[in-house]
Amino acid sequence: MKKIAIFPGSFDPFTKGHEDIVNRGLKLFDEVHIAIGHNTNKNRYFPVEGMIEKMEKLFEANPNVKISTYQELTSNYAKKINAHYILRGLRNTTDFEYENSISQVNRHLNKDLETVFLFTSPEYAAISSSIIREVHKYDGNVSEFVPFELD
Amino acid sequence: MKKIAIFPGSFDPFTKGHEDIVNRGLKLFDEVHIAIGHNTNKNRYFPVEGMIEKMEKLFEANPNVKISTYQELTSNYAKKINAHYILRGLRNTTDFEYENSISQVNRHLNKDLETVFLFTSPEYAAISSSIIREVHKYDGNVSEFVPFELD
Amino acid sequence: MKKIAIFPGSFDPFTKGHEDIVNRGLKLFDEVHIAIGHNTNKNRYFPVEGMIEKMEKLFEANPNVKISTYQELTSNYAKKINAHYILRGLRNTTDFEYENSISQVNRHLNKDLETVFLFTSPEYAAISSSIIREVHKYDGNVSEFVPFELD
Amino acid sequence: MKKIAIFPGSFDPFTKGHEDIVNRGLKLFDEVHIAIGHNTNKNRYFPVEGMIEKMEKLFEANPNVKISTYQELTSNYAKKINAHYILRGLRNTTDFEYENSISQVNRHLNKDLETVFLFTSPEYAAISSSIIREVHKYDGNVSEFVPFELD
Amino acid sequence: MKKIAIFPGSFDPFTKGHEDIVNRGLKLFDEVHIAIGHNTNKNRYFPVEGMIEKMEKLFEANPNVKISTYQELTSNYAKKINAHYILRGLRNTTDFEYENSISQVNRHLNKDLETVFLFTSPEYAAISSSIIREVHKYDGNVSEFVPFELD
Amino acid sequence: MKKIAIFPGSFDPFTKGHEDIVNRGLKLFDEVHIAIGHNTNKNRYFPVEGMIEKMEKLFEANPNVKISTYQELTSNYAKKINAHYILRGLRNTTDFEYENSISQVNRHLNKDLETVFLFTSPEYAAISSSIIREVHKYDGNVSEFVPFELD
Repeated sequence: MKKIAIFPGSFDPFTKGHEDIVNRGLKLFDEVHIAIGHNTNKNRYFPVEGMIEKMEKLFEANPNVKISTYQELTSNYAKKINAHYILRGLRNTTDFEYENSISQVNRHLNKDLETVFLFTSPEYAAISSSIIREVHKYDGNVSEFVPFELD
Repeated sequence: MKKIAIFPGSFDPFTKGHEDIVNRGLKLFDEVHIAIGHNTNKNRYFPVEGMIEKMEKLFEANPNVKISTYQELTSNYAKKINAHYILRGLRNTTDFEYENSISQVNRHLNKDLETVFLFTSPEYAAISSSIIREVHKYDGNVSEFVPFELD
Repeated sequence: MKKIAIFPGSFDPFTKGHEDIVNRGLKLFDEVHIAIGHNTNKNRYFPVEGMIEKMEKLFEANPNVKISTYQELTSNYAKKINAHYILRGLRNTTDFEYENSISQVNRHLNKDLETVFLFTSPEYAAISSSIIREVHKYDGNVSEFVPFELD
Repeated sequence: MKKIAIFPGSFDPFTKGHEDIVNRGLKLFDEVHIAIGHNTNKNRYFPVEGMIEKMEKLFEANPNVKISTYQELTSNYAKKINAHYILRGLRNTTDFEYENSISQVNRHLNKDLETVFLFTSPEYAAISSSIIREVHKYDGNVSEFVPFELD
Repeated sequence: MKKIAIFPGSFDPFTKGHEDIVNRGLKLFDEVHIAIGHNTNKNRYFPVEGMIEKMEKLFEANPNVKISTYQELTSNYAKKINAHYILRGLRNTTDFEYENSISQVNRHLNKDLETVFLFTSPEYAAISSSIIREVHKYDGNVSEFVPFELD
Repeated sequence: MKKIAIFPGSFDPFTKGHEDIVNRGLKLFDEVHIAIGHNTNKNRYFPVEGMIEKMEKLFEANPNVKISTYQELTSNYAKKINAHYILRGLRNTTDFEYENSISQVNRHLNKDLETVFLFTSPEYAAISSSIIREVHKYDGNVSEFVPFELD
């Protein structure tokens, strides 16, 4: 049976930190499925269609990376795509407490779902999507933090 | 003199973690007064009237548990209900920093008000009202986290 | 060359904790420039004009304290005012993680910009502008936390 | 039934931070029993006999403070002195994690034992017995941290 | 190629928390190799031979669990046993900081070595080998924390 | 008046992380005085004489870096060398809590002594002297973490 991991997030935008987790996750799983939690009623800063396009281009050489959007509980969507693992990056202790809570709730909702953590590489640990949005809004240069050209 | 503790929160919804703190608080205080901070202008996810009804039913056998709503500073409301103690549960280090600040400000506003902490039992430490709302919104099963049937 | 530090924040309101950092920063730098990040489209609780007025009065005896507003990246504004240092106070571990991220991004955006931290004095470490706004909203007494009379 | 709390520690030395917790604990409990965990084979920096003497003098006006030494599990000793509560001070997040573990193990060993936490007042939160020993060893002045003259 | 994970530790003693990580790790890896870091010059509380015997009995039905001792860098020993993954449990934020440092150093020493983290299940998160030793030393009952009878 | 900062530590060994803090501190202070706390009765892993020699060579081009050993309270030694600032690096939240306590005690012992913090650059944040000693003991390669050849 293929080992499939779901890598959920809003990816607004997808960062080099996220790319690092996907690439390292591929050594652990047969398939890493990047799942963009997307509520059509909520505004994103970077529109979801454009983001998916860039992400697909980034991973086009790698058939073991899948990308899709979803609008339901992560634990439900994991079942649909046959993922028995959630892949998550940990940057700092604030992440830790949040992820600890979420992973326990997810295991409660779906007993077969195991959350697996990798520590974000130190050169990316300071990056968050929200900081990138803030810098981008004021025309700051974020190219060092994002694995593709942003619009 | 009766030892009265105020247990303040928004309780949107009241969880098994909250219930655990109330029950353990009753071994410490003569009365635990659950005070629902309710701003009539702010939207709740679970309407306050329904929540109070369920909470009153839950504790109906215990005359030492009181429930009310308030719309002022916690330290003021504590005075009105003769509470000299604030009862709070601690789940993790993120809670710790927040509660530390709040408790010092409350002591400044009301010198006679002592905040008393119990550590949330580990089986409930992952639960927060906000995670429950998120799961409930997507029709996930939250019955294991809440001490009564939700609508 | 004069050593200028920018002390950025929203200062809504300016607190005794902020005042403490400015005064201690003056022992380290020739000039501390308090820079109020002010987005004209975002609502403040305490209007920015009144706040500046009170802050200028507070530091009127000290020509090495400058006050201005800005609406761009902190790292850009630092360049404009010839600041090679960002001055920040640290209150607790939650602050730590946030400031750690921001300081690394700022150093990326402007290699000559060094962020310097002082630990907030313990008597002020519980104070945050957001708690003061909350207490003030409910007519609580905040005079012990703020270095001037608030309206 | 009298509400008795055990306040366990090595108290090498007893600090103003400890004194603060005892005094605030007395508003919560009928009796606070300071229990000095003392392994006769382990060296203390401040000999236990002298420390007890000074502590007894400090609290001599207050019959609700008891002081004794013990050399067994805290949960066992609590049973012997009829304490149903453990009183502990929390200074910071490092304390938090440690105390969280200990309190859960104690509850496992003795179901009737509830650990109750107070946040250390900010002016004492930096003090620890080990820092005081370090300063004292190099003849530094620790009188501001300790509620009595040390030898 | 078989996916082998090394699970390093001193296991003095092996706890139910460790057992939980091994069992969950087996869903992720083809083999989990428990590696007991053992310095023959350092004293253990529970002798290593007896501990190995009990651990082997515990996992005797599972050929994918291996147990051995080692006395060198974990990254070196991983190479010898063909492990490309280090498996670690995370209990709290104190663990987080320590593990973050160690995992980065290990990746530096051996580029092919990826550290994978699982969050300890909440019912075991309070347990540590050092607390168990402390309780055992004073004849406390630790059977609920350890997956086999201790001597 | 010259702005002198003391950079205290045991430096067993001095790391690239330490070097980073010294170099960045030189932009802030006129002189950075590296002070090796050395208790002649305590064993070091790397003998102090050899370490000083290597450190002096490393900074020989920079007359604003001084190196010495001391065996007293840091706050006292600071006075002797006319340092009004303590320079410290912060790597993570565990560092934070410890440094917060120490800095407050130091300010108590010497009112004129201000502790100034820089965040360790992310590429060095995982390094600690104790991890380097551990790796070195087992003949691991630590050259990437230390700014000179170790014996």
